[in-house]
Amino acid sequence: MSLHQLLSELATPAVLLDKRRLQANCERMTARAREANVQLRPHLKTAKCAEVAALATAGQPGGVTVSTLAELQYFFDAGYSDLTYAVGIVPGKMGAIEKLMEQGARIRVVLDSVEAVEALAERPVHQNVAVSVPVLIEIDCGGHRAGVSPQSEQLLAIAERIVAAPGLVLDGVLTHAGHAYHANDMASRTAIAIAERDAAVLAAQRLRAAGHDCPTVSIGSTPTALTDIPLDGVTEIRPGVYVFFDLAQAALGVCDIDDIAVSVLATVIGHHREAGHLLIDAGALALSKDVSASEFHEHVGYGLVCDLDGLPLPGMYVADAHQEHGFVKNVNGMPDFERFPVGTRLRVLPNHACMTVAPYDAYHVIDGQSLQKWSKATGW
Amino acid sequence: MSLHQLLSELATPAVLLDKRRLQANCERMTARAREANVQLRPHLKTAKCAEVAALATAGQPGGVTVSTLAELQYFFDAGYSDLTYAVGIVPGKMGAIEKLMEQGARIRVVLDSVEAVEALAERPVHQNVAVSVPVLIEIDCGGHRAGVSPQSEQLLAIAERIVAAPGLVLDGVLTHAGHAYHANDMASRTAIAIAERDAAVLAAQRLRAAGHDCPTVSIGSTPTALTDIPLDGVTEIRPGVYVFFDLAQAALGVCDIDDIAVSVLATVIGHHREAGHLLIDAGALALSKDVSASEFHEHVGYGLVCDLDGLPLPGMYVADAHQEHGFVKNVNGMPDFERFPVGTRLRVLPNHACMTVAPYDAYHVIDGQSLQKWSKATGW
Repeated sequence: MSLHQLLSELATPAVLLDKRRLQANCERMTARAREANVQLRPHLKTAKCAEVAALATAGQPGGVTVSTLAELQYFFDAGYSDLTYAVGIVPGKMGAIEKLMEQGARIRVVLDSVEAVEALAERPVHQNVAVSVPVLIEIDCGGHRAGVSPQSEQLLAIAERIVAAPGLVLDGVLTHAGHAYHANDMASRTAIAIAERDAAVLAAQRLRAAGHDCPTVSIGSTPTALTDIPLDGVTEIRPGVYVFFDLAQAALGVCDIDDIAVSVLATVIGHHREAGHLLIDAGALALSKDVSASEFHEHVGYGLVCDLDGLPLPGMYVADAHQEHGFVKNVNGMPDFERFPVGTRLRVLPNHACMTVAPYDAYHVIDGQSLQKWSKATGW
Repeated sequence: MSLHQLLSELATPAVLLDKRRLQANCERMTARAREANVQLRPHLKTAKCAEVAALATAGQPGGVTVSTLAELQYFFDAGYSDLTYAVGIVPGKMGAIEKLMEQGARIRVVLDSVEAVEALAERPVHQNVAVSVPVLIEIDCGGHRAGVSPQSEQLLAIAERIVAAPGLVLDGVLTHAGHAYHANDMASRTAIAIAERDAAVLAAQRLRAAGHDCPTVSIGSTPTALTDIPLDGVTEIRPGVYVFFDLAQAALGVCDIDDIAVSVLATVIGHHREAGHLLIDAGALALSKDVSASEFHEHVGYGLVCDLDGLPLPGMYVADAHQEHGFVKNVNGMPDFERFPVGTRLRVLPNHACMTVAPYDAYHVIDGQSLQKWSKATGW
């Protein structure tokens, strides 16, 4: 059966994954990590998929990063035992983490306050966990989401409290330049990448000067990782969305449109000639309501529309989205209704791949002319 | 164990469902349908849950409405055999529908063009389906999403083509006043409700005048259903979000904040004192990126923040959301960091309940002082 026939028989909406692009994206980041002499610890919150993890970690002994307990369990079950849970830890999540540690996982946790260390330290240490929990101190490198300033007194106070706590061990520092998602020229992106690196390295130097071990100096976001600055003093990078890329990354100039490896397969379910749109069965749940790329581009809406081969259809985008209805408009005028009869299959490139693929339980993977199905984690 | 203790042991993020509010919301709509002398066919795309369906259909033999094949299968398995699939039908979805029909389901499908009828009629009629597929013609009552004008020639042409097609039977008309979601005063909401009713009734009259049966005259959205206009000529209403309500419905004046039955349970995972926010572990995936209520209210963001009892905390809202991080700010100044230490549990009222609850696989149902778990459908 031809690929077109295979794609025509899938239930829609569905997420398609172009394996060739996925591999190229993974190789690009692997090469960057090697060239910068750092480990690559890919953030798998994007793909939530073991087969993607295998490509992303090929030749990389640097472990993986996750952002939910469900991902921790899923990737541990898939054979990944070196995991960083890169969202601020609270005592209520330690039961699940220690359960995996008992089974052999090494899980780094992240926090950014003395208070958070106290909360962990006050809970009864799990009797069966022979090894201490490695803790990374989160550093704010300018994104102002979480973390302490690398110059702060707090940094040293947190380190001291970790070292004093039974069952915890200081492993290093971690930062994430999330604000790089709003930098759409190379100069500002490079400036943020330098700030990210320097914040983590400075924090590590201050910890070491105070007598602490600091084996891990972890930074990373896709836009900052894909600059060419030297990463001296950094031990690992944790980019995530690069495995798939998306319209938001393309809008930043981090990738090209034809690097985007995921798309949502949809079916034309109606025409509204007066209103000037095609309806597709990929709506706000199938695409997400993320409109990140609109920060820099008009007429991206909820995604750019491609034909079944994945070639962008000039001017066509998802202008509006209800729960299960997407409204496809043409920026140049009326859509060509005759060209896209009811039943036509289209593909939509997502604004933000992490948001779009999250609710799906599988990828339909295009590998040459064949189609495979890779399952993935969902939920929390 | 007290309810507070039970809630403190749930993994977060999680969706809580207040059973008393859910029941009151269901009773309100049931009473409205009874008073207007129409059947209630609740749209279960919101809840995707059999236990909610049981409350929503109590004393109502009017069947249910769904918007995905996954919901069709789920509710058929849960004992609902009278189902309307209220998204434009395409041939590719008929295999799954006929499979359920073979097992005893009666499934109405919806379309709005001669072309769509042709597409259905051209496919080989499934040999094992003894009964014809009932078809509703979608009417545009002013929302301009889908449907034909009730005055149009197309309406009659579609009906004629359905009647002529083997395996299809004309069942009536269906419309949805989605534009009522943007009407935030009673006068404009009532005007839309009247237009919705009149469009469906006019279309039915024209079909009957042309000699067609038109047993079903189906209208419905939560905002229009909860007006007090007479519904003469209408046979059923299909509201959905009323079972839970949300901030968007409250912004329209359709419900009060304390009618909202769902909230997202979250944990405080950090403080960023300089930036002036608490971080919670309910971010863009846990809350969705829907910001509907912002059309009418400032400082709603991705949701309003409540304490563990579900009481709104004045001024506190989710100002920003990353994948697994929510940023809680206080519109009146700094959040009271001492009051909400790391580990504190909060509840977030959603903008748009349908979007927020979709990715979760269960509700944690607060019933007095006890907690139950109701599973639900997800995906497509």
